[in-house]
Amino acid sequence: MFESATLKHQIDKVAYGRERAKLRRALLDAQYDLKERAHFSVLILIAGVEGAGKSETVNLLTEWMDPRYIHTSAFFQPSDEERERPAHWRFWRALPPKGEIGIFYGAWHTMPIVERVMGEISEGELSRRIGEIQRLEKMLCDEGVLLIKYWFHLSKGQQKERLKSLEKDPRTRWRVTDLDWRYFKVYDQFMSVCDPFLRKTSTAQAPWTVVPGADARFRSLMVGRHLLTAMNSRLGQKPLKSAKKAPDHGASDRPIRLPKPSDDANTLATLVLDQPLSKGQYKKHLEKWQGRLNLASRDARFKSASVVAVFEGTDGAGKGGAIRRVTGALDSRCYSNVSVAAPTEEERAQPYLWRFWRHIPRYGRFILFDRSWYGRVLVERIEGFCSEGDWMRAYSEINDFEELLVRHGVVLVKFWLAISKDEQLRRFRQRERVPFKRFKITAEDWRNRQKWDSYQSAVSDMIDRTSTAVAPWTLVESNNKYYSRIKVLKTMYHALERTLGHIPKKSAISMRGS
Amino acid sequence: MFESATLKHQIDKVAYGRERAKLRRALLDAQYDLKERAHFSVLILIAGVEGAGKSETVNLLTEWMDPRYIHTSAFFQPSDEERERPAHWRFWRALPPKGEIGIFYGAWHTMPIVERVMGEISEGELSRRIGEIQRLEKMLCDEGVLLIKYWFHLSKGQQKERLKSLEKDPRTRWRVTDLDWRYFKVYDQFMSVCDPFLRKTSTAQAPWTVVPGADARFRSLMVGRHLLTAMNSRLGQKPLKSAKKAPDHGASDRPIRLPKPSDDANTLATLVLDQPLSKGQYKKHLEKWQGRLNLASRDARFKSASVVAVFEGTDGAGKGGAIRRVTGALDSRCYSNVSVAAPTEEERAQPYLWRFWRHIPRYGRFILFDRSWYGRVLVERIEGFCSEGDWMRAYSEINDFEELLVRHGVVLVKFWLAISKDEQLRRFRQRERVPFKRFKITAEDWRNRQKWDSYQSAVSDMIDRTSTAVAPWTLVESNNKYYSRIKVLKTMYHALERTLGHIPKKSAISMRGS
Repeated sequence: MFESATLKHQIDKVAYGRERAKLRRALLDAQYDLKERAHFSVLILIAGVEGAGKSETVNLLTEWMDPRYIHTSAFFQPSDEERERPAHWRFWRALPPKGEIGIFYGAWHTMPIVERVMGEISEGELSRRIGEIQRLEKMLCDEGVLLIKYWFHLSKGQQKERLKSLEKDPRTRWRVTDLDWRYFKVYDQFMSVCDPFLRKTSTAQAPWTVVPGADARFRSLMVGRHLLTAMNSRLGQKPLKSAKKAPDHGASDRPIRLPKPSDDANTLATLVLDQPLSKGQYKKHLEKWQGRLNLASRDARFKSASVVAVFEGTDGAGKGGAIRRVTGALDSRCYSNVSVAAPTEEERAQPYLWRFWRHIPRYGRFILFDRSWYGRVLVERIEGFCSEGDWMRAYSEINDFEELLVRHGVVLVKFWLAISKDEQLRRFRQRERVPFKRFKITAEDWRNRQKWDSYQSAVSDMIDRTSTAVAPWTLVESNNKYYSRIKVLKTMYHALERTLGHIPKKSAISMRGS
Repeated sequence: MFESATLKHQIDKVAYGRERAKLRRALLDAQYDLKERAHFSVLILIAGVEGAGKSETVNLLTEWMDPRYIHTSAFFQPSDEERERPAHWRFWRALPPKGEIGIFYGAWHTMPIVERVMGEISEGELSRRIGEIQRLEKMLCDEGVLLIKYWFHLSKGQQKERLKSLEKDPRTRWRVTDLDWRYFKVYDQFMSVCDPFLRKTSTAQAPWTVVPGADARFRSLMVGRHLLTAMNSRLGQKPLKSAKKAPDHGASDRPIRLPKPSDDANTLATLVLDQPLSKGQYKKHLEKWQGRLNLASRDARFKSASVVAVFEGTDGAGKGGAIRRVTGALDSRCYSNVSVAAPTEEERAQPYLWRFWRHIPRYGRFILFDRSWYGRVLVERIEGFCSEGDWMRAYSEINDFEELLVRHGVVLVKFWLAISKDEQLRRFRQRERVPFKRFKITAEDWRNRQKWDSYQSAVSDMIDRTSTAVAPWTLVESNNKYYSRIKVLKTMYHALERTLGHIPKKSAISMRGS
């Protein structure tokens, strides 16, 4: 991986000056082209050996281009708001919008490498993390992000030389810290982790580019040219003559069709949608389960967990009513609702899951999604709002996303509220009659009803493909709304209790309720 | 203020049930009307005595209405991300967009009252804070927010009774904490601060409504009715018959015209725009001041401060070039750029300053605004993008905003880059000739040039009205771009040094630079 990077690379000053002028102009052109067309964003990951010129090169790039459309993020210690959310949240919140460039220092690759070198995680855990990274990067690329990854390299001898020369100069002495020397001592160990790490996370869509760090002029030109070629090839322009061909960053989607079932048997068809529960029984159950959920929400251990609840279902199945029975059990200060409709302009400029990541709550809070990220494999699939390739890959992207949540201590519950076709008709007609329910029924509802069968098979696929061990779907028989609401409350309570049971009772302070 | 609130108010169960059903329906109607038309947002502040039913009432409101469009925020301990920004930042980030309802517990009124009761701030400081709140609320109302403030009240005897009865019931015992009893002990002191506080922060646009807290049914109906009337009167609908007339929340803008100067003398006209500095001298100065700025940015004390820099100026005056000379001195990980253009959809749904507040950085960081909140008194004024009332009130809103920044330890520098009309012509023509500068010159630039005189007088007004002691404008003579850039760097360095000089050197750890 690093063999050629440690060879002696040099460029003389005159040649550098000439090339640099051309490069700057071309980079600026490419940047404005990117900004104007705004078809995609560029995300540059910066990693590598200390002292290999990472920050110098980034400073140079921001100097060469228009700094207004470059967003540099360095991921040091997470803030408390970041610590209380899944580790990827901080990266999502820093993603550049389409048309702009983001530069990430110490992104998702840093911690797995450091933790493995320090012996904090096992080889197996490292493999798992590598898989997580591969899937994250694939998803970003598929979503149209031009992902460019630079690894700045120095051999052990070069690093020692570099640190010493920095220490000698009073103007740069401050830059060398004890930590650098500590890292230097574990150089060989570090490399023995990095080498396979880089290989495994180098994919056709997003390969690592190893940059020899010893000569400032050489590495600056190399990065500049590479970035230019990558941007221009994506922008569909001719690259500079002097630059080598960059890898193709275009997304290739050739989805394989889902198999059609040979009969009508599907998970939904097996449900007995009519379930008994009288109004009287309902009232008793409601008090009981709302009370329990309320108590659980005030448990001291809930300071190390949060709840993300997804409500999906047939139109008219009573999502809103079920949500209100849940919020009715909670202090209004500890939950938020998100009603998912058309994405905003800022959301459209980001990868699909961005609009959901932004709502992921801190510990101690509930978030209730009325419709969710499943829109992609339901309405977007059926209405053709996205390509077949997009919704086909969404299944595994969603599974990855949900796994990240659950691993972080999020209690994830997903409800599919199902009613029969007849029951839907009855409810639609009733809604049209009752004045204060009229807002709930629109022409679109009637149109969707005509696509009943398409929805049934999309839902069935969705459940098959996204009901995982960590994030199972709960199918809720909802012809009887009383039964439906109680099942939602009970399920949510039990899921929360199960998670709280795994958290040690370290703190006895309960949340204030008044 | 509280006299009538402590009288015995009661509503019997039957009357309550009847009224509640009507109220729920009407509130839901009003809420959907608000959502659909999205002309304004509703912000409800919740304050008052402990045990007076604050959280119960809010829970009820969210139950009565559609919880998807109500966002409740409780402001407890600030997170570290909040602590490192001016105190108002956390409120701005939680503001509801147009068409939706926000509920704030413990908003900006809580801390001044508590700190005064505890003797932590003086009477004078309390007055200052009250002024700050008055101006903030006025601004929100002028920006179209329907601001509704409820104070939930109990007499001393009622509070004691309430706490005791909560303690008796095992289901509510958890709600009474030692803190509640500690607050109870200082009830009289608390009231002696609250009473004048409420009077002073009760304005025609946003009066406090005192809600008697003792009877749950009475307070629920009172708040529900009041909210309904306020929303409907703003929505232009007829209020419910049973509700009393709510105060008029409409903004009234009757601006007084700015005086026209009787001669051409203005601040800009006194500037000597041609200032000498050769390229050779420039290079030396550049190295010197960039070096100093870099050193200052790595000072350990910069962990308790941040820099907000505003770049405004005549078209073609070299804002971009000046910004690049500043960023050239900085590590790319410690600054961000914001180029201010047309607001996004999410920004348009918020009060004007929201789009700037969202970028205010944490400590240890620089943010550079290429154009800024001054757009309102420059381009928006001249092009008529906002009403005269809007830009007239913007001067003081901006002054308030900037004072909040500076009080929090933000180093605020504001540059106006000025060039002569001839110099502008020369630069425009040159830009049209040089290929890689062509993107910088558009038809709009030529159109703006025709409005030269309007801009000069708008700029002159802006400087007169917003060059305050805490946030002075720096006028930069920019016909010679070398001189201009050095003046910017020097000014920024000195401003930063001045602020750092006031911060004790508590920590010797410097920021890592590599």
